[in-house]
Amino acid sequence: MRIVKTISEIREIIKEWRKEGNTIGLVPTMGYLHAGHGSLIETSVKNNNKTVVSVFVNPTQFGPNEDLEKYPRDIKRDSELVSSLGGDIIFNPEPDEMYNKNNKTIIKVEGLSEKLCGITRPVHFAGVCQVVSKLFNIVTPDNSYFGLKDFQQYVIIKKMVEDLNFPVKINPVEIVREESGLALSSRNVYLTDDERKSALSLNQSLKKASLLIKNGENNADVIINEIRKIITSVPYTIIDYIKIVDPETLEDIKTVNNKYAVLLAVYVGNTRLIDNFSELS
Amino acid sequence: MRIVKTISEIREIIKEWRKEGNTIGLVPTMGYLHAGHGSLIETSVKNNNKTVVSVFVNPTQFGPNEDLEKYPRDIKRDSELVSSLGGDIIFNPEPDEMYNKNNKTIIKVEGLSEKLCGITRPVHFAGVCQVVSKLFNIVTPDNSYFGLKDFQQYVIIKKMVEDLNFPVKINPVEIVREESGLALSSRNVYLTDDERKSALSLNQSLKKASLLIKNGENNADVIINEIRKIITSVPYTIIDYIKIVDPETLEDIKTVNNKYAVLLAVYVGNTRLIDNFSELS
Repeated sequence: MRIVKTISEIREIIKEWRKEGNTIGLVPTMGYLHAGHGSLIETSVKNNNKTVVSVFVNPTQFGPNEDLEKYPRDIKRDSELVSSLGGDIIFNPEPDEMYNKNNKTIIKVEGLSEKLCGITRPVHFAGVCQVVSKLFNIVTPDNSYFGLKDFQQYVIIKKMVEDLNFPVKINPVEIVREESGLALSSRNVYLTDDERKSALSLNQSLKKASLLIKNGENNADVIINEIRKIITSVPYTIIDYIKIVDPETLEDIKTVNNKYAVLLAVYVGNTRLIDNFSELS
Repeated sequence: MRIVKTISEIREIIKEWRKEGNTIGLVPTMGYLHAGHGSLIETSVKNNNKTVVSVFVNPTQFGPNEDLEKYPRDIKRDSELVSSLGGDIIFNPEPDEMYNKNNKTIIKVEGLSEKLCGITRPVHFAGVCQVVSKLFNIVTPDNSYFGLKDFQQYVIIKKMVEDLNFPVKINPVEIVREESGLALSSRNVYLTDDERKSALSLNQSLKKASLLIKNGENNADVIINEIRKIITSVPYTIIDYIKIVDPETLEDIKTVNNKYAVLLAVYVGNTRLIDNFSELS
């Protein structure tokens, strides 16, 4: 396992790999890896000859009042995890290596980027599309892996790849949870013990919603109300949104049928958490 | 020489070429090829093992009142030219093959796309960036060739490639002119005989400007005025813009030094023509 910090070095390695006929998987992350990322890495290692894990904390996807400066980093622990799971490269460039000082190019997936998390985070998905495009062009992977926890991100990246014909397959990977049900997130580290207890209401409300749907409830408003009740019944929570949407267009749906995504964004104390479940087929 | 109409077929061919270790050049055009395109193709054939010429007339770079419908096409003549110059593939997909009906992804090179031709053609460069990105992702060329006649396009594509790390080298190719001095353009076919005579004023004014600069004139306004005098002295011409700009930022410059571009856009009758000369180093 090698840590690579420059674009030219990773391109040299990729060139050699290609000469040897290897397939390449890319796992784009922002580091501070947890078992959710681990699951992405494992899936990549299983399905490709070589796996690159990017841990670049991308400044362009943070808004001016967001947590770029305090975003957690631990390259030593990240290296141990990637190595133990059979990954081949950690890509960890400095911001100056990734962005020339006069960067002018933006990518927008219109209609998908402005909704949901895009309302509170207006520059977020443009930044994600920018850095993911750059990583695709640098690593030229056959496969790339995205966790379904960032559901909107997965939908946007999939659409961008389809629209621009990037020669890479986008593979969704299931959400990984603590035993308590809390979805793993690098931002969970911000939670106090009490907030962490309240944060369990996200998964609990989703489980309730899933049960309702299984039992035949198909009115989106009814389901959303049940979710809201559970989340507002615990302290420290402020709901950003609870939505039931079409999993491709991200448009609200009124009646739940065979394809849907139930999406939450909730502030717990000062920490904004997201969670969801979906039926994609 | 093969004509290819589908993305999957061209990808198969590229895959074989790559296995054999070939380098690949891409010449993105909109067909109706003339000797200017010929020069791009020749340069590609000379510098790459394989050359792909796209003749796709890209609808997304035309505005609602522009000449998409009447844009000239002649695939038979195009094939003969590409074949005679040693090109390997003409890529000629239908619009439905290139664009899914729900395309949402746009690319903007901010600060460069809105200026100059971007003022009268507000969607043009977003369309160009979109289709060129798609072609890069489909053909995965080592080199791509752009004529300096579309100077703003060259600058924008070069910046996009740099900003997004597309693994392709962008090569500028000099303007090709008729003996009369008229820069070759697929749109010249729209000109009446009288308009064609007036169109010569574009190159004549640029030659005058070049002479002025050589003789030490460095005041951009003085040079622009000389150009304007020559173009307005002939019938049928309406000036869209005459600009002297920095060749990377496309910002106006007041004093001409070692790096500059002198850019014209002029309506001759109903036909909008562009021409320029530049010093890039």
